[in-house]
Amino acid sequence: MPDFAEPLSRLIQEFKRLPGIGQKSAQRLAFHVLRVPQEDAERLVEAVLDVKSKLGICQLCNNISESELCPFCLDPHRDRSVICVVEEPHNILPIETTRQFRGLYHVLLGAISPMRGIGPDQLRIKSLLDRLESGEAREIILATNPNVEGEATAAYLGRLLKPLGVKVTRIAMGVPVGSDLEFADEVTMSKSLENRREL
Amino acid sequence: MPDFAEPLSRLIQEFKRLPGIGQKSAQRLAFHVLRVPQEDAERLVEAVLDVKSKLGICQLCNNISESELCPFCLDPHRDRSVICVVEEPHNILPIETTRQFRGLYHVLLGAISPMRGIGPDQLRIKSLLDRLESGEAREIILATNPNVEGEATAAYLGRLLKPLGVKVTRIAMGVPVGSDLEFADEVTMSKSLENRREL
Repeated sequence: MPDFAEPLSRLIQEFKRLPGIGQKSAQRLAFHVLRVPQEDAERLVEAVLDVKSKLGICQLCNNISESELCPFCLDPHRDRSVICVVEEPHNILPIETTRQFRGLYHVLLGAISPMRGIGPDQLRIKSLLDRLESGEAREIILATNPNVEGEATAAYLGRLLKPLGVKVTRIAMGVPVGSDLEFADEVTMSKSLENRREL
Repeated sequence: MPDFAEPLSRLIQEFKRLPGIGQKSAQRLAFHVLRVPQEDAERLVEAVLDVKSKLGICQLCNNISESELCPFCLDPHRDRSVICVVEEPHNILPIETTRQFRGLYHVLLGAISPMRGIGPDQLRIKSLLDRLESGEAREIILATNPNVEGEATAAYLGRLLKPLGVKVTRIAMGVPVGSDLEFADEVTMSKSLENRREL
């Protein structure tokens, strides 16, 4: 059975390496690329190459940045007394979308995961401690993911930071707003009960 | 609120132009590209460019091809008396996967769609008629999609081809094998009843 032409198979393979893209999606994407005008394909290619060549990491908070410091760290209007710790740069967007947080960020670039052999040493924890030395930050919000790795990381950071006299908080876990209790999983429901607040 | 760095936003925009990729998926893909080694990004870029530069269309059947004729048209073992008509090159794969069809293909590169202003003139129908002139083909299987456009195209081709004395068939529509009648939609179920076969 003759297969796809070699360049097409190769593009399908490359698309399949991307997260969340299976065989069928990869095929659809590859056939799409085949069909679009040359300029569109070139724009995609250029965008990929630019991301790799133009972006680096903020020297202060490890967020993605085009310059030495990211827009948050450069912004004089952000509140320097609160630092929100997240695992990855893309975790910043959902927090910014709330427009509720006006402090700075610190990106760990990962989470503790014994399963994948990632310990505290592989995370950007040292630079977080350095940032605390000035005494400017008074609260650290631990906004690592609400899963096993994120919880382990938050627990580790809690133990590490509390003795330094800084206030350490963890984002709340509970049933999502607008959802139905019927669909809440057991662990979330139990967190939701555990973290109940008096009205 | 500071947004993503410009090169990253641009890559997200480009990914969003791909079929089936929304904002969240585009973000995940862009952050993935940001993280992978430079070589991986370059391999993707090269695959995209190669697909655009190395692939053309088979001069006989309009399938995707690296050379003037596609592997099917070149293969001396394929049965030249049957031509299976499909809308797009990617429709060939599911047919080949059955290993049941050993004839040739003809790709229309589209389907009749008055809604999108696509009439028979925009499809590769003239070249199909040319292929029939040799008298080699004795059956035309219409394997256009089982939807409104595909049905309209099949009906049009049926009327056009039958007077030429060639046998014209249409692939069967009915309930999918391994499914449950409970989940069959009304139209499919009615097609399935209509096309019932005596045992």
